[in-house]
Amino acid sequence: MSPVDPVPYRIAGIAGSLRRASFNKSLLAHAAAVAPPSLAIDVLPDALRLPLFDQDLEDAGDPDEVVALRAALAEADGLLLVTPEYNFGVPGPVKNMVDWMSRPPGRAPLRDKPVLLMGASTGRLGGTVQAQGQLRISLAVVGAHVMASPPVLVAEAGTRFDGDVLVDEPTQKIVALALARFADFVATHRPR
Amino acid sequence: MSPVDPVPYRIAGIAGSLRRASFNKSLLAHAAAVAPPSLAIDVLPDALRLPLFDQDLEDAGDPDEVVALRAALAEADGLLLVTPEYNFGVPGPVKNMVDWMSRPPGRAPLRDKPVLLMGASTGRLGGTVQAQGQLRISLAVVGAHVMASPPVLVAEAGTRFDGDVLVDEPTQKIVALALARFADFVATHRPR
Amino acid sequence: MSPVDPVPYRIAGIAGSLRRASFNKSLLAHAAAVAPPSLAIDVLPDALRLPLFDQDLEDAGDPDEVVALRAALAEADGLLLVTPEYNFGVPGPVKNMVDWMSRPPGRAPLRDKPVLLMGASTGRLGGTVQAQGQLRISLAVVGAHVMASPPVLVAEAGTRFDGDVLVDEPTQKIVALALARFADFVATHRPR
Amino acid sequence: MSPVDPVPYRIAGIAGSLRRASFNKSLLAHAAAVAPPSLAIDVLPDALRLPLFDQDLEDAGDPDEVVALRAALAEADGLLLVTPEYNFGVPGPVKNMVDWMSRPPGRAPLRDKPVLLMGASTGRLGGTVQAQGQLRISLAVVGAHVMASPPVLVAEAGTRFDGDVLVDEPTQKIVALALARFADFVATHRPR
Repeated sequence: MSPVDPVPYRIAGIAGSLRRASFNKSLLAHAAAVAPPSLAIDVLPDALRLPLFDQDLEDAGDPDEVVALRAALAEADGLLLVTPEYNFGVPGPVKNMVDWMSRPPGRAPLRDKPVLLMGASTGRLGGTVQAQGQLRISLAVVGAHVMASPPVLVAEAGTRFDGDVLVDEPTQKIVALALARFADFVATHRPR
Repeated sequence: MSPVDPVPYRIAGIAGSLRRASFNKSLLAHAAAVAPPSLAIDVLPDALRLPLFDQDLEDAGDPDEVVALRAALAEADGLLLVTPEYNFGVPGPVKNMVDWMSRPPGRAPLRDKPVLLMGASTGRLGGTVQAQGQLRISLAVVGAHVMASPPVLVAEAGTRFDGDVLVDEPTQKIVALALARFADFVATHRPR
Repeated sequence: MSPVDPVPYRIAGIAGSLRRASFNKSLLAHAAAVAPPSLAIDVLPDALRLPLFDQDLEDAGDPDEVVALRAALAEADGLLLVTPEYNFGVPGPVKNMVDWMSRPPGRAPLRDKPVLLMGASTGRLGGTVQAQGQLRISLAVVGAHVMASPPVLVAEAGTRFDGDVLVDEPTQKIVALALARFADFVATHRPR
Repeated sequence: MSPVDPVPYRIAGIAGSLRRASFNKSLLAHAAAVAPPSLAIDVLPDALRLPLFDQDLEDAGDPDEVVALRAALAEADGLLLVTPEYNFGVPGPVKNMVDWMSRPPGRAPLRDKPVLLMGASTGRLGGTVQAQGQLRISLAVVGAHVMASPPVLVAEAGTRFDGDVLVDEPTQKIVALALARFADFVATHRPR
């Protein structure tokens, strides 16, 4: 942010879990709180609450929730998606949201959007590495720009949060580093 | 099927698309119609119509639709899953079903279940190869047994069906071969 | 092994690392030492030392190392592949070996072969989960039968070995469980 | 290219196949011939001819071929990697090259490098979609910037080339579009 460009980029923040007490929601809240001044992260709490994708539904006119989320993403300069991993893959509700937001072809709100992925899991293994890998592939074909690194992969989340507060310092540092790089990335990649 | 084992294996048939006019539904219907006598494929038309996975929902007691699908799968000797691919990945509603059916840990209805994957897409590329690859990984960690080959990957589905009838002979042959092998596979792998 | 079937299954053991001091070699050696009596694991120390795959080479007549490895695999009842992960994927030398052993079409030595995957990495993340996922997909299309579970994913290998001896008890247990299941799996799946 | 910046970006071009008559070599040659003036694509014919990755080799001092390729990549403003797919994955020799070029940590020549992926396969399915997906994940963790779209996936290559000349017009168009976008992408992403 230079003195002549004081407006922060608006980043849509989506957590990939529906449960109330979610490490991924807490990780997103932490990121929103510590983001650099050039990034204003707006959490979209109902982003996953969409109908199951069904082309008949779409043909009948997009559901209201879909229209609302498309509008919110269209206005955003970027997306921060913080997601768990289920069964070595993207959670169904997260992929469902991505599938709706990949439509309509040519005018998808995810197209040309800068994206930062993060994720937390309670298990010892991977910290959502496979969910993020699958999302990287799906988001690329939609035309979104997924930042390459550093990966933010929080394994054993139960040991890194105190209640809903991220207290693990190494994790705090990697989150801060990723956000700082994302600020540059959005400046370079946001749709014009 | 030997003379002393005349009861066919019951195979749950699930199509991975919710729209009415779906090539994957047609492909499943074709498979059910031409299956060898040792396989009785029961199509479960509402298998995808589950709530979005939410652990709070699960903790409050499983939704009725989830209970019903678990019971149907628990009774089946195997699963035939015929799915499209969205954005180079598993459709959200399909992964959502797999995620529910991967629960509860230790008693998941997919555990030890023989699975045959098929898929159709209208595009030229891949015929759902990436969706099937991701499902192979997710189903393995759940403990299901996914048959290795032959892959049934139907690209350019618009040219292979006449209305909802599969008319492409090479596709008919690979489907028949996969079903014949699956009959042996179920005999070997079904839970005992 | 029943009293009337006293010959153990011969399992080819391949480590996916070329370096001398390799946790994956040590993990393979441990597995070979503790395998149940029905499995005789023969380590093939030079299995990765093949030329880079090149169809011109193949057309000119298979290199001696390739011929030798094909013969060793053809005689084996199964394969235990213990591999590291490089850059969130299969190590190049491991994929190179799989690519050679997937040939020639129709007579590939990996075809119909029961396979058990294991892996160790020094990092905190994943314990080779992505390498194993990619191998599961590649081996399936070759027609091999990869056992579904339990996954043997050894992260932070530096803390689980004392020199080249696996000393971590939870890891020893999961290895033993996987081997016990693999004995049944080979009995069911080996080519006849 | 503005009037004040007349020097074209130097792009290292690597084909992922070792055989002489390779559709991927022909596709790379076509791309080099039709690239916009702002991109000068230098084909590195021996890029894959590296020893199998072995950390003992690395510890003993990098092999000459590795040193040479690292230097060539370090001088380049970007990388065009045109690769086949073997067994639903990255060819072994290609991954081996990526693994060498991901080293040493912190100074890898692929780090921060803009990358364009293309691929051709003779089969009907996918046109290397899975190899490219795996490379996208591996290259991201190395810190390279892989352009998101359009995907250049050439299936049924046998019908799109006349000898070693790309004659299929739709494929020519997608290659031209990808190169035009890559020129902008390199301008934005090349290391400074």
